Amino acid sequence: MEFISGQTQKKVVEISDILSGGYEGRQISMNGAVHTIRDMGDVAFVILRKREGLVQTIFERGAVDMDFRQLKEAATVEVTGTVKKEDRAPNGFEIRLQAVQVLSEPKEPMPIPINKWKLGTSLETKLNLRPISLRNVKERAKFKIQEGIVRAFRDYLFSQGFTEIHTPKIGAKGAEGGANIFKLDYFHRPAILEQSPQFYKQMMVGVFDRVFETAPVFRAEKHNTKRHLNEYTSLDFEMGYIDSFQDIMQMETGFLQHMVKLLKEQYARELDILGVALPSVEKIPQVRFDEAKKLVSEKYDRDIRNPYDLEPEEEALIGQYFKEEYGADFVFVTHYPSKKRPFYAMDDPADPTYTLSFDLLFGGLEITTGGQRIHDLDTLENKIKARGMTDEGMEHYLMIFRHGMPPHGGLGIGLERMTMKLLGEENVRETTLFPRDLSRLEP
Amino acid sequence: MEFISGQTQKKVVEISDILSGGYEGRQISMNGAVHTIRDMGDVAFVILRKREGLVQTIFERGAVDMDFRQLKEAATVEVTGTVKKEDRAPNGFEIRLQAVQVLSEPKEPMPIPINKWKLGTSLETKLNLRPISLRNVKERAKFKIQEGIVRAFRDYLFSQGFTEIHTPKIGAKGAEGGANIFKLDYFHRPAILEQSPQFYKQMMVGVFDRVFETAPVFRAEKHNTKRHLNEYTSLDFEMGYIDSFQDIMQMETGFLQHMVKLLKEQYARELDILGVALPSVEKIPQVRFDEAKKLVSEKYDRDIRNPYDLEPEEEALIGQYFKEEYGADFVFVTHYPSKKRPFYAMDDPADPTYTLSFDLLFGGLEITTGGQRIHDLDTLENKIKARGMTDEGMEHYLMIFRHGMPPHGGLGIGLERMTMKLLGEENVRETTLFPRDLSRLEP
Repeated sequence: MEFISGQTQKKVVEISDILSGGYEGRQISMNGAVHTIRDMGDVAFVILRKREGLVQTIFERGAVDMDFRQLKEAATVEVTGTVKKEDRAPNGFEIRLQAVQVLSEPKEPMPIPINKWKLGTSLETKLNLRPISLRNVKERAKFKIQEGIVRAFRDYLFSQGFTEIHTPKIGAKGAEGGANIFKLDYFHRPAILEQSPQFYKQMMVGVFDRVFETAPVFRAEKHNTKRHLNEYTSLDFEMGYIDSFQDIMQMETGFLQHMVKLLKEQYARELDILGVALPSVEKIPQVRFDEAKKLVSEKYDRDIRNPYDLEPEEEALIGQYFKEEYGADFVFVTHYPSKKRPFYAMDDPADPTYTLSFDLLFGGLEITTGGQRIHDLDTLENKIKARGMTDEGMEHYLMIFRHGMPPHGGLGIGLERMTMKLLGEENVRETTLFPRDLSRLEP
Repeated sequence: MEFISGQTQKKVVEISDILSGGYEGRQISMNGAVHTIRDMGDVAFVILRKREGLVQTIFERGAVDMDFRQLKEAATVEVTGTVKKEDRAPNGFEIRLQAVQVLSEPKEPMPIPINKWKLGTSLETKLNLRPISLRNVKERAKFKIQEGIVRAFRDYLFSQGFTEIHTPKIGAKGAEGGANIFKLDYFHRPAILEQSPQFYKQMMVGVFDRVFETAPVFRAEKHNTKRHLNEYTSLDFEMGYIDSFQDIMQMETGFLQHMVKLLKEQYARELDILGVALPSVEKIPQVRFDEAKKLVSEKYDRDIRNPYDLEPEEEALIGQYFKEEYGADFVFVTHYPSKKRPFYAMDDPADPTYTLSFDLLFGGLEITTGGQRIHDLDTLENKIKARGMTDEGMEHYLMIFRHGMPPHGGLGIGLERMTMKLLGEENVRETTLFPRDLSRLEP
């Protein structure tokens, strides 16, 4: 009988192996995709693209049993050669080739110059050719940063006693109600795609006190803007036994501080490729919704048209105000009007026109909505009635309050928006692997 | 201006704080849900349920400015008291109360005895009351173990140079085709819910060489069995530059070994609560599909009815065979018949009736399907044609092969099935937070 007992020693080395030292002058094997070929006559510089970056190989006529003119860009290869220190090469070394084995060959030349530093194509073209355009080194670096954000979220929350959960995305009724819900047929029963894990994460607070989920959410909004997606990754947490909604903003600030630290330590290569300066997260100002409107109205001489909502331009100006006045990249806007928040938001006892809730703006864009939730059954049922809503389909949700829930609250962070602002992009599609919007369902 | 600069020192302590030492005789505050109250006349044992376990508190008449008969089970409280060593109490300590603050109260008694060690209710009742039944200590422990499995998957793959990706769940066409796909209306265009991230993870192999995703998948299968769900969490990876599909099985074995280690080290409490013995993963036997059928047919005197497929009973017998003969909990069954695998599976050059693919059986149940994929465009297009399929809607998928793909393969692991087998459960709904099946769309 044959057995598998884990991984065997691989014959190929990675960039990080070589950078760890001891390879100078040694013969190694390495695989990768042929990123570019620079033909110098008797010698060619063949650059390999690997997950950790680029590697310069030197292909000398006669040294290898193959003519480098037979080698194609975008072929995948396994090469054998000798490692040599070379300060001008990426990562400070090159490989002088002795053998090249072609693993696969492309059928057609690239439709876009993915091996250029800057792709220089329109967003539309990049998205149409997404499976290929992502091979560009700068394009893919955005999604390593995105990975880092999610890692930081999970790692920080694990360290704070949170439990990770996986809640269903097909449901019978949406958490927040409203029209922006995708509908589907579920074995001849009407069903929806969840626009948020809100009800489930609250249920799970009764089980694990603190929970989080990183998963897709679905919004059938007919917005066609630079900041809206119809499917996105939501970083959600919910925590019990809070003293106030300040606890939630503190937890988010702690996460942001951990995120900046992790990106600095483990994603320096990608930050460098993208030329990104990390934002300041030492201290984040908080300002009341009504106060923020007034500050912006006064400083930028702008009329307050709607006292109950923030227009996108107002959000941007609040961001600008706090950058100018306090050098702040982030600002918590607190106490949103009750009529603009979902029924489960806890009203401020000091003035029930407002809620104990907040948005976090990053560079003038909302990337988080959060707040304290109602945990008392009577209060919740009264608010449902007062809004003219029915509690039909909410039996399971209301069950948790009937049988005791601690004071609690939480938030949801839009991953793609967060990545967009962190990288200074102007369109959320730039930081979404395969965006879904009003017109885009493929690739 | 007010600023938030991260987390402030909390006034409450957790179980792990006390277990870390130095609290004996000290006055502390702690919060939790009232799990049980044992009234002894002048004194009551009030057990608090917290995320890390149970805490025994001693409520003496007169010592606290409240009558313990006013306290209700399922209330949430913040208590103040003195920590005392007590070997008979959970975690070896108790808290002698000086003050109790009730944070919230239940409206009705529990419909099921969640504070009993064994819930002793039917699966149907547990699922109907899921938001409450999960508060039972044994019930919730299953989902801590599930968290550990996902953590192990991610941590191990990060250590092996994989990149985490987030791919869309709404698409234009399913990866594997077929009828088992949920359909929805996407702004007046037909759309589907992805039954697997297959195409996307292959696309991303061209970008990052090695990728993984932990996300929901959707299957509109009309099976109503103990092992089927219509939505589940799939742990997927895909890796490039493989020498053979053995590399994939080695990677999975490495993950399983890491999983067992992580569970032992960090989830010992939950393993103990559930009385679970971890499986053996030192070496996992591999056997060809046709060989496995023969072995089982001979040993258990059973006719081979269908040479191209494994019946569930046959899978169970293969599990039994390798347990009896080799003490193995897992077995890789390799070389599945081509006609039973999707078009992108790589046929075995030695005999194209079979594929370079595998299933991993755990206790006689398939928990993983994986294998090597075709990476050559012509081979892929010929196989699509030979199957009478059209490549309509696959333009973006085929694009990656047109522009060069390394030899690659991968797998998908059903998280809930894996958890079920690990915990020795008989029904996958036992290890799904909120199952979706033919009849269940709520909670």
